[in-house]
Amino acid sequence: MKNDKKMVEQITSMDVDFAQWYTDICKKADLIDYSSVKGCMIIRPYGYAIWENIQKTLDTRFKELGHENVYMPMFIPESLLQKEKDHVAGFAPEVAWVTHGGSEKLTERMCVRPTSETLFCEHFANIIRSYRDLPKLYNQWCSVVRWEKTTRPFLRSREFLWQEGHTMHATAEEARNETIQMLNVYADFHEKDLAIPVIKGAKTPSDKFAGAEDTYAIEALMHDGKALQAATSHFFGDGFARAFDITYADKENKLVYPFQTSWGCTTRMIGGIIMTHGDDNGLVIPPSIAPIQVVIIPVAAHKEGVTEAAESIYNRLCGNFRTKLDNSDNSPGWKYAEYEMKGIPLRVEIGPRDLEAGQCVLVTRHNREKTIVKLEDLEAAVAERLQAVHDGMYAKALANRESRTYTCETIEEITAKLAENGDGFVRAMWCGDPECEDKVKELTGVGSRCIPMDQETVSDKCVCCGRPAKKLVYWGKAY
Amino acid sequence: MKNDKKMVEQITSMDVDFAQWYTDICKKADLIDYSSVKGCMIIRPYGYAIWENIQKTLDTRFKELGHENVYMPMFIPESLLQKEKDHVAGFAPEVAWVTHGGSEKLTERMCVRPTSETLFCEHFANIIRSYRDLPKLYNQWCSVVRWEKTTRPFLRSREFLWQEGHTMHATAEEARNETIQMLNVYADFHEKDLAIPVIKGAKTPSDKFAGAEDTYAIEALMHDGKALQAATSHFFGDGFARAFDITYADKENKLVYPFQTSWGCTTRMIGGIIMTHGDDNGLVIPPSIAPIQVVIIPVAAHKEGVTEAAESIYNRLCGNFRTKLDNSDNSPGWKYAEYEMKGIPLRVEIGPRDLEAGQCVLVTRHNREKTIVKLEDLEAAVAERLQAVHDGMYAKALANRESRTYTCETIEEITAKLAENGDGFVRAMWCGDPECEDKVKELTGVGSRCIPMDQETVSDKCVCCGRPAKKLVYWGKAY
Repeated sequence: MKNDKKMVEQITSMDVDFAQWYTDICKKADLIDYSSVKGCMIIRPYGYAIWENIQKTLDTRFKELGHENVYMPMFIPESLLQKEKDHVAGFAPEVAWVTHGGSEKLTERMCVRPTSETLFCEHFANIIRSYRDLPKLYNQWCSVVRWEKTTRPFLRSREFLWQEGHTMHATAEEARNETIQMLNVYADFHEKDLAIPVIKGAKTPSDKFAGAEDTYAIEALMHDGKALQAATSHFFGDGFARAFDITYADKENKLVYPFQTSWGCTTRMIGGIIMTHGDDNGLVIPPSIAPIQVVIIPVAAHKEGVTEAAESIYNRLCGNFRTKLDNSDNSPGWKYAEYEMKGIPLRVEIGPRDLEAGQCVLVTRHNREKTIVKLEDLEAAVAERLQAVHDGMYAKALANRESRTYTCETIEEITAKLAENGDGFVRAMWCGDPECEDKVKELTGVGSRCIPMDQETVSDKCVCCGRPAKKLVYWGKAY
Repeated sequence: MKNDKKMVEQITSMDVDFAQWYTDICKKADLIDYSSVKGCMIIRPYGYAIWENIQKTLDTRFKELGHENVYMPMFIPESLLQKEKDHVAGFAPEVAWVTHGGSEKLTERMCVRPTSETLFCEHFANIIRSYRDLPKLYNQWCSVVRWEKTTRPFLRSREFLWQEGHTMHATAEEARNETIQMLNVYADFHEKDLAIPVIKGAKTPSDKFAGAEDTYAIEALMHDGKALQAATSHFFGDGFARAFDITYADKENKLVYPFQTSWGCTTRMIGGIIMTHGDDNGLVIPPSIAPIQVVIIPVAAHKEGVTEAAESIYNRLCGNFRTKLDNSDNSPGWKYAEYEMKGIPLRVEIGPRDLEAGQCVLVTRHNREKTIVKLEDLEAAVAERLQAVHDGMYAKALANRESRTYTCETIEEITAKLAENGDGFVRAMWCGDPECEDKVKELTGVGSRCIPMDQETVSDKCVCCGRPAKKLVYWGKAY
């Protein structure tokens, strides 16, 4: 379909059809396109620029903590994938298999990496000899493939971009500390950079990563009350080290197994940004990672001095903020709609009357609040407004989560709260029995999301069986 | 094989066995490792840090020229690959085929991208409607796969990292300008950042990219006299646009075909750095992209004040240069050898006697020249020395190329020059007949590398057949 003229088109209202609203934003904000490669997406320049900013910010954080980037092959021979039994059981059903190179059949088929633990382990076995070689703190930015049946842009795609950290440590304690440290990095990044409040917690045993001893995750609540697992961090113990025969000589020159972690986050976070912050006018991007933080729009640009004033504002801002000046001949109204769709955090309007009064108008995207600012105060006002956008976005997301978090003591209470208030997080106690975990999901529709680090006792009985409770669990419907 | 202690081991001398010397450097400088994935390499932290610096520098240049990054799927359905007949003929024999997703056989097999023209074309057909949508200036950083029989780290690997630019223009002239502009970007990057002199030229018709109207390349001469194609830039005309039905409405609202380019460079450039600048002590990295530009080594660190002085030097330099202080308990001699192997451009030595004299010693890696510098002049001296390293490396590479460039008028002369002086570039005239091109290679071993942009007439006859010559051609043995 070819349209002659690009319009800022209406999108489906989020209250009418949240799923359609989501897809509309992905397309209309120029984040993605589809192709003939089923289940995969094209990430367009605007979407990719968001990913680049996420990458840059996280990569700096990782490197400050001593991590180094590496690149592993994208293929995994079948025999290598099979070395750790839980791991292969978890991933084999959903990998893409390469069977031919050119016209020749391979003697052993290889999968496209769904994750690279097996490759890292093989490499670690080669390069780790003594305690002096530890820790190894590695990270990789790459794409991975998982053959999903049902796909959605950013949230679940057959190919996605991610980073995967893989570290090796002399002691279990050190590896456990790394696991928690990286979970905290993800949580802090979500709160400080993405303006998304998250719950940090451990996954229940049935929900652990294939091969992990413990899996931790951060869980965010989307606008519609569904939960999104936004990043994970795993403690492997020495399970993979034993399977791959990775040993090192300790200070007493005894050969022992090292302890391992892995941790990752993906382009799925862009889906989280859309569903946490977006509204019926389109995307809302947190200032920290917005490709354009400030857009300047001249009003009645044909009037004397307006274009020059807009350019002067641009020149003053562009050194400190990611700034765009739109002096095209589209109408201001069209531009407002276009940049609201794209979620630019702050808009600067300047017209003849503003010029006369020596001022301009700043409009924050997330709440459309207008502030009139003296031109001489411009830089400080823009910095202040961007911080206000971040804070406002975070507060709004937190308020949504709080209004949709229900503390419950019985199955009936869960069902009633969800029916009354819609989807959300349910806080309820659990005895630790996987059967109760399954039963809660079966009866209420919400599954265990995580066992939060911040434990509290909201009842002394399991919400399901009434036996003594062991843990507070967050339950929810998950993307 | 596990060694108890890491040593700075001897590498094979480049004059004894250049190929083995190359492989030794790749391994001993910790650039790569092998795995059970045949024909692929692991890029280790030090090698990947070089690639990250290359990426950062090139990406900045691309963006300054208006290019935007995107991400396309890594798979190409067979029917899509087949849309442009020359293209599929060129690539189909060397692609990896995915035939199964999980346990299910795919209804249509897909290859892992060997290059992404077909995917970009399909996308361009979707998003280009009018002349207002042009130009599209896209770039992608990713990995690609080509099923090579014989592989060598960085130079020829089944999977490699690269960038691929894909642009669409309203006119052929604009697309031609883009093709040449990007060729110039690559050439400038090689000379200014990698200290590698290059010849810019067009490929002969038999050597063009599959589907291109014209292919341009930069060719560098390695230390052993063999040529390396370091980057390519292609003008596609409207051939792909016609095959993929990409049209746009021009200003008269007539549907016409746009014109296209693509251009790319790869991790192969790291191979070029090794073979241009390396020596028997190891790698030599150009300062612009060196992960560590300056290494500080305290001498007799147990003597009073030495450690503090080394730390003070580190603190003064680390803000402006990528600096490392090695205050481990390895001997200075061991450290010298280690950082020479790793190719750090500049070494700062400071010992008790230097301290007394208020000075330190700067040693440039490429020629081991020592400069004694007053401590108060440190920052300026380091900046000057790094520039001297770059200039010296470039001059050395250029001198090697000049001493190995032979202008010849007959086949006999080519054979004699190569026998007498060893491999190198042969400059000789060509009539334009592909048969002569093949015959030169058959008789002398050197194939056409490029038709240089800077044309000259060194004879009026074809070096092969004696008929009137059309072009000066650079000939050589290629990696």
